Amino acid sequence: MKAVLIIADGLGGRPTDVSGKTCLEAAQTPNLDELASRGVIGLVDPIAPGIRPGSDTAHLSLLGYDPYQVYAGRGVFECLGIGMSVQPGDICFRANFATVTPDEDGFIVEDRRAGRISSGQHELAEALNAISLEKSVGVEFDFRASTQHRGALLLRGKQLSPFVTDNDPHESGKKAIAFQPVVGHDDEVACRTATAMNELVSYSYEVLHDHPVNQQRQRAGEHPANYILARGASILPYLDPIETLYGVRGAVIAGGALYRGIALACGMERIDAPGTTGGLDTDLASKAKTVLEALRRLDYVFLHVKGTDNAAHDHDAKAKTAFIERIDAELVGPLMEDIDWERTHLAFTGDHTTPIDYGDHTAEPVPVLFVGPNVRQDSTIAFGEREASRGGLCRFSGRILPMLFNYNNWNPKFGS
Amino acid sequence: MKAVLIIADGLGGRPTDVSGKTCLEAAQTPNLDELASRGVIGLVDPIAPGIRPGSDTAHLSLLGYDPYQVYAGRGVFECLGIGMSVQPGDICFRANFATVTPDEDGFIVEDRRAGRISSGQHELAEALNAISLEKSVGVEFDFRASTQHRGALLLRGKQLSPFVTDNDPHESGKKAIAFQPVVGHDDEVACRTATAMNELVSYSYEVLHDHPVNQQRQRAGEHPANYILARGASILPYLDPIETLYGVRGAVIAGGALYRGIALACGMERIDAPGTTGGLDTDLASKAKTVLEALRRLDYVFLHVKGTDNAAHDHDAKAKTAFIERIDAELVGPLMEDIDWERTHLAFTGDHTTPIDYGDHTAEPVPVLFVGPNVRQDSTIAFGEREASRGGLCRFSGRILPMLFNYNNWNPKFGS
Repeated sequence: MKAVLIIADGLGGRPTDVSGKTCLEAAQTPNLDELASRGVIGLVDPIAPGIRPGSDTAHLSLLGYDPYQVYAGRGVFECLGIGMSVQPGDICFRANFATVTPDEDGFIVEDRRAGRISSGQHELAEALNAISLEKSVGVEFDFRASTQHRGALLLRGKQLSPFVTDNDPHESGKKAIAFQPVVGHDDEVACRTATAMNELVSYSYEVLHDHPVNQQRQRAGEHPANYILARGASILPYLDPIETLYGVRGAVIAGGALYRGIALACGMERIDAPGTTGGLDTDLASKAKTVLEALRRLDYVFLHVKGTDNAAHDHDAKAKTAFIERIDAELVGPLMEDIDWERTHLAFTGDHTTPIDYGDHTAEPVPVLFVGPNVRQDSTIAFGEREASRGGLCRFSGRILPMLFNYNNWNPKFGS
Repeated sequence: MKAVLIIADGLGGRPTDVSGKTCLEAAQTPNLDELASRGVIGLVDPIAPGIRPGSDTAHLSLLGYDPYQVYAGRGVFECLGIGMSVQPGDICFRANFATVTPDEDGFIVEDRRAGRISSGQHELAEALNAISLEKSVGVEFDFRASTQHRGALLLRGKQLSPFVTDNDPHESGKKAIAFQPVVGHDDEVACRTATAMNELVSYSYEVLHDHPVNQQRQRAGEHPANYILARGASILPYLDPIETLYGVRGAVIAGGALYRGIALACGMERIDAPGTTGGLDTDLASKAKTVLEALRRLDYVFLHVKGTDNAAHDHDAKAKTAFIERIDAELVGPLMEDIDWERTHLAFTGDHTTPIDYGDHTAEPVPVLFVGPNVRQDSTIAFGEREASRGGLCRFSGRILPMLFNYNNWNPKFGS
């Protein structure tokens, strides 16, 4: 048997127009509707009713883990997703290039995203990684650039603590904040970690500001990427590997580092689909093709699509609706065509609701569908929030991957 | 945005008559039906399926707390609800006046409710509070009378324990029981607490029996309120304040001390609506008016109505149905008229099922409705147990307040 899990980020919505429909309900999705009519649908609270999920905690929950037990911050998943080898004890951060100007006793953040720098990031990262921390003896670090200004940062050494605050002021024109031990965790180890981070970001300006990449940016009137902002300090959590739990092997296909990182932490392998961007311009047909190829070799594939959430964060109902229609036509269509439906179960859902008006995650449950030979088909004939509330799955919380695997009879018995 | 939560105590029911309808289904509720047709409905298990809730644990769960984590007895909420200032370490009891006659080595409880005494209670309480415990040096107490025979009692001092049993024999004609340490917690501190309580109730007879209020009662052929029964020893639990969790401020409007106490423990302020009795004779129009006034100043209001439960405990289907019709006409109607529906979400539900035949709480889920601009309206057109099972919310457990606040985009994100 084979299994496919598709998560469209921020899929759920609230009524957006005079018709009272959500983007998913308004979108023309003949393929998803066909799968709904062949399968069973319902509503899933990504974590629990009334809990407003982050993307990281929602994914952990949908993959079958209890985020209240295992979640220890986002940074580690970003590091893993970018391809860094995280070891127990490493302190991981989400990090990005920013533009600062020196102040008498610090730095003013002019642009938190360094003009959304789109080339030269890897050379800048290389220059940064060449320095060594002189005051923080024994502490090593690694910064990796990913898309645009984004990246991840890892601190390695004896006696480091994840209990340090961020340096990101979250607003332009404000001073970069000094890293500090988290209140209540201000022991020697956290102090040492904060000192190392402060030394590192202070060096980052020295190394980056006059780097040729930035000299050229300044000549072109662009913001120099001359500083590092870091947040979300976290260590590697222990997640029971999916292969240990269910005895099956699978892969993640995702444009966003976070989603790859979570899947890698669960023991999936990473497959990159050509043309994947983690945005609205991603190549969905390439993703479909890559899923089908991976299924030949592996037991299951987890495919993540990010554009739905991006459009919703931008308050763009048209773009969200159009992207859902693209998912239906360019991703779901080809999969329907070529999947071996006698031997495969597929789940399609979102990781949370992102309403257009609000432009951020909310707690409402998300529609989910399961299709394949073992599901108890219901009488629904379309895929959408309201239709899902009438589906055969009713409403439940998280654990989509275990439910999908269960249809393949892969799950261990609890008890005897 | 504004939010209104209305809980009608013991709202849920079982079929009561040949028509097979519950009281809620039998009641004419055009306003609730209209809200159901504008909004979304479903079934809520106040704590979890099959768990038979108390009013206290159900309210904690509906307000978003885990009663298995935070519940530590009812007494503290009664003390808070009556207006006592409870401090960490205080031992709180539900307490009430009773009528006893001395026995050779104790007291026989003749009437557990002292003839439902309806005047003079506060003078009796004053007399009681004037005494000091001679054997239990350093232990202070405070008894407050509320409605009829009811009240609350607070013990304060160093080294007191909530692990003491009750003195209420729960049956007339039986001997009042001596307070004792709870088995397994019978340390010196619990012994000291039990001794103080035994001394206190023993004094209560001495002080109360010949009090002018009771002399007059006896002349009138009424039972004297000459003894204190106390139960439900508990300490102040830590509940994350709602303002800390969601950044919003609100108030409770409730006739019953318990409900006010729970809300106060969550950080709500208390507003008293004139004419509120906590019974079937309460002034519902006054409650509606008070809600609307409070909404001008505060972010949210939690309104509690008790009469539904009282009628059900009295096995009175007619009274329960009639009270539901009064809620619909006198409370919901005026609110519908005057609430600013473009900026307000409202939730209406019960805290548990109280079937007429059984006359006490049972575990069946309770219908709930949410209405306001952000809800995903469903196709239901009436408010009742069976209609709710077809609603867009399906079925879930507890957490009504977080779900209501989510529609207002007030909830913190868990994760990132």
